[in-house]
Amino acid sequence: MAMSVQSTEGKRALGSTSDENSVVLKSSSTPVRVNGQSSLQKEIKKETRLGISTKKDEDFGKWYSEVCRCGDMLDYYDIKGCYILKPPAVKVWGILRAFFDAEIEKMGVEEYYFPLFVSPSCLEKEKDHIKGFSPEVAWVTRAGESELSIPIAVRPTSETVIYPYFSKWIRGHRDLPLKINQWVNVVRWEFSDPIPFIRSREFLWQEGHTAFATKTEADKEVFDILQIYSDIYEKLLAVPVIKGIKSENEKFAGGLYTATVEAFIPSSGRGIQAATSHSLGQNFAEIFGISFENKERKLEKKETKRSLVWQNSWGISTRSIGVMVMTHGDDKGLVFPPLVAPVQVVVIPVPFNGFDVNIIYEACEAVKSTLLAAGIRAKSDNRDTYACGWKYADWEQKGVPLRIEIGPRDLAKNQVRIVRRDNGAKADLPRGDLIEQVKDMLGKIQQSLFDAAKRGKDACTQKVENWDDFMEALSQKKLILAPWCDEVEVEKLVKERTKTETGAGAKTLCTPLEQPDLNEDTLCFASGKPAKKWSYWGRSY
Amino acid sequence: MAMSVQSTEGKRALGSTSDENSVVLKSSSTPVRVNGQSSLQKEIKKETRLGISTKKDEDFGKWYSEVCRCGDMLDYYDIKGCYILKPPAVKVWGILRAFFDAEIEKMGVEEYYFPLFVSPSCLEKEKDHIKGFSPEVAWVTRAGESELSIPIAVRPTSETVIYPYFSKWIRGHRDLPLKINQWVNVVRWEFSDPIPFIRSREFLWQEGHTAFATKTEADKEVFDILQIYSDIYEKLLAVPVIKGIKSENEKFAGGLYTATVEAFIPSSGRGIQAATSHSLGQNFAEIFGISFENKERKLEKKETKRSLVWQNSWGISTRSIGVMVMTHGDDKGLVFPPLVAPVQVVVIPVPFNGFDVNIIYEACEAVKSTLLAAGIRAKSDNRDTYACGWKYADWEQKGVPLRIEIGPRDLAKNQVRIVRRDNGAKADLPRGDLIEQVKDMLGKIQQSLFDAAKRGKDACTQKVENWDDFMEALSQKKLILAPWCDEVEVEKLVKERTKTETGAGAKTLCTPLEQPDLNEDTLCFASGKPAKKWSYWGRSY
Repeated sequence: MAMSVQSTEGKRALGSTSDENSVVLKSSSTPVRVNGQSSLQKEIKKETRLGISTKKDEDFGKWYSEVCRCGDMLDYYDIKGCYILKPPAVKVWGILRAFFDAEIEKMGVEEYYFPLFVSPSCLEKEKDHIKGFSPEVAWVTRAGESELSIPIAVRPTSETVIYPYFSKWIRGHRDLPLKINQWVNVVRWEFSDPIPFIRSREFLWQEGHTAFATKTEADKEVFDILQIYSDIYEKLLAVPVIKGIKSENEKFAGGLYTATVEAFIPSSGRGIQAATSHSLGQNFAEIFGISFENKERKLEKKETKRSLVWQNSWGISTRSIGVMVMTHGDDKGLVFPPLVAPVQVVVIPVPFNGFDVNIIYEACEAVKSTLLAAGIRAKSDNRDTYACGWKYADWEQKGVPLRIEIGPRDLAKNQVRIVRRDNGAKADLPRGDLIEQVKDMLGKIQQSLFDAAKRGKDACTQKVENWDDFMEALSQKKLILAPWCDEVEVEKLVKERTKTETGAGAKTLCTPLEQPDLNEDTLCFASGKPAKKWSYWGRSY
Repeated sequence: MAMSVQSTEGKRALGSTSDENSVVLKSSSTPVRVNGQSSLQKEIKKETRLGISTKKDEDFGKWYSEVCRCGDMLDYYDIKGCYILKPPAVKVWGILRAFFDAEIEKMGVEEYYFPLFVSPSCLEKEKDHIKGFSPEVAWVTRAGESELSIPIAVRPTSETVIYPYFSKWIRGHRDLPLKINQWVNVVRWEFSDPIPFIRSREFLWQEGHTAFATKTEADKEVFDILQIYSDIYEKLLAVPVIKGIKSENEKFAGGLYTATVEAFIPSSGRGIQAATSHSLGQNFAEIFGISFENKERKLEKKETKRSLVWQNSWGISTRSIGVMVMTHGDDKGLVFPPLVAPVQVVVIPVPFNGFDVNIIYEACEAVKSTLLAAGIRAKSDNRDTYACGWKYADWEQKGVPLRIEIGPRDLAKNQVRIVRRDNGAKADLPRGDLIEQVKDMLGKIQQSLFDAAKRGKDACTQKVENWDDFMEALSQKKLILAPWCDEVEVEKLVKERTKTETGAGAKTLCTPLEQPDLNEDTLCFASGKPAKKWSYWGRSY
């Protein structure tokens, strides 16, 4: 179904050209011009059949891929699982980066850049770690015409790249804590089907790596970082997340425990690991020989004066952009939360027959400048080759939170028409206090998107206490909170059994930090053994 | 020779502990503490023999590598030709990036992120291009345990990654100009000896790729970008460069012509390609099928209504950081031009026996806060385990432009002692107008570093008009300006002959945009044929 863009808005100003042309969007990210050449128009019409043709609740996967592409977030690439990130996606990433950098700078984290490549001797040093990553590691074996004597790996994550140097740099107490972060690309050659942003063979992320003298300090940092990740999702991306701990099965390969923020996509009924903060304990420290001269051991005249450091690693990736798109997008396309919107307000002139269009254009430019001066990311769309109805649809598709329309009637009344992307609400605002009003509306949209997403997630959440209810909830694509005995084998069995019975396995998503009360006699929903905790279960990305 | 850090400065305040300990620097980037334990001190002393032990004019290569490491710019990595960029290097890169981004945003360039990998069918499409890059391309042939059916290349540069999509995205006039930029890592598996920042197998850069309807627009951009590169070097990094055009031999593989900014390192007598802006003409457009419906051709009712686009690509890399280090560094270590210095002013307390050290520390913190509030990147060094003389040497080694010392005498007079890194000049400044004075001094240091570098380069530049003078100048490590017939074969011969006769070949560095007068009867210094232009010649990195 082709997207209808014969917006009623276009008719508001009368005489607007918006409904005089067959205004349509084509498949590629570049909109086709409406220029009255009939042969070209035929071509355009053929192309438009490929716009956002799918509804979010009809075929979620197809809808998502179309929204990403039509919203100009990315394009597909000729190597499977690799994507081209386009300007809006790169901008969102830049905004998240700036926020995160400011937060971790306060914590004393410094930025490094470690190499893309890792030698097999380092990569393979930690056995659990390499077992976790080796199936996905891309190997460079040739340079030019020469076979390399030893193949080298492209980093899937940088623990094994970085820790040999921690071992070199850390000597004594005063070298601790060591806190580093880098913003890099990593490669995981997944063989399951790729999904834009969500599961790609190359992705961008930050990875933090820290070392402490004590477990107490390290543990504190795990959750400090988790809180920043939670803020990125909830405050910037307006996506509600659950803070929790991964099960033994699902924790980071080689680590002690993994703290996670988990999101849930109601449309697909799948959980998604949104960002993780790993306690590595002393495991990598032991293997890579990262120790420091411990003053306390010295005072106690212990034989060995050196102690192993306590390490963490933590990361958030461009996957976060995909979670945002999945959460807020609708049948018209992207919906950006204002705080991360590359363009927060678009100003569109609404021409009227017989009225000097330049006066309208000037007013649009003036409004844009006022907004920009107030620190609002604004853009005006004065392309004279597109009808305004077409532009409305174009910017809706691109997810811009607020649209301002200015036509002769608005000029006469010294007002603007403003339209919210999230709910379509319209208002006429006097130009006098525009800035205040716009800021207020952007704030409201931000909150309202979060609230809606929270309601959606909550509506999908179901508490169950036995297997039948669990299976019923799973069939309804729920996010399931269930009492669990916390046994690795039981999780494995649940995964297998759900896979056999329904075709798609379910597993633990996390054990939430906020635990509901657990009665002493509560039993595990799956094993019938005494339950130790409430955990979230479901299918996941 | 171990670096002496028993600074006379340390004695100024009397009673300072600076000369009571054997203050030394160790080889690794982390300074060793002075803690009075004799067994540890022995260990330290052994290590210190590896500090900056080489003078810049004694063994330039060794000096450079030591300054990079001791200045905490990078560390060596276990894969040859790959380096770990440490916080000061990453910060400089961030400053250059912010400057460049702001400049190209004004030009309408948008940021993308294209994949790291390129398929051979794309990489090998342009024959000259692949000939230029193929010897250095790293190939991924295996993922996990699976051999890939087709090996994929790691981008050495992204023309062949990006242009298939230009072909898809560009349809008509209105899609032009298309201007994109990305900040990425690239890999060139060079087999010649790596040099930190200057020649590494992986490096960071920005690469811009643009397409225009007309050659005029494209040409203009080539030089607009070149001017920004020149500004990055001359204004930010305080490194003088020559704007010029590369010879046919030296231009970008597959391009039409290459504009370049060239720097010269007097200490090694080598030129260095500092950043390049390539006109690609219509060559890639033809091969990748990048064309647009040309309105003019339509009006003229030409048979073919489509025209090929005119393309440019341009890049500057982390090599720029190396050029800066080579240009300004001295026997004490790094020297940062203030505009790119990660720390512009370091404030160091100078304790005095019997005087409450906390009062001094507080004063240092207060001064630091005042500087920070004024937008000056300031740091205080209140580590109580290091003597102040040791700290002076440490921050000198790290290249901080200005050092402020505060001791009891300064407190009494409500002044600070300020010391310039570049020339060691000292002054006592009243705290009242400190900000103004510091800003003024930072500006002067910036200018003075550029002036000194310019004098150095000019002193090395020599005009020659015949072969004997050329060879003489070459033996003196000069940057040689010579009249040339502009024939490819002659350049090749010069390269071969200088290589045979001196062991290191010389080639053209560039033909400067600013041409000295060329008399009609001037002959080529090498071939004796009529000269067409003045070009710079020399050895190069």
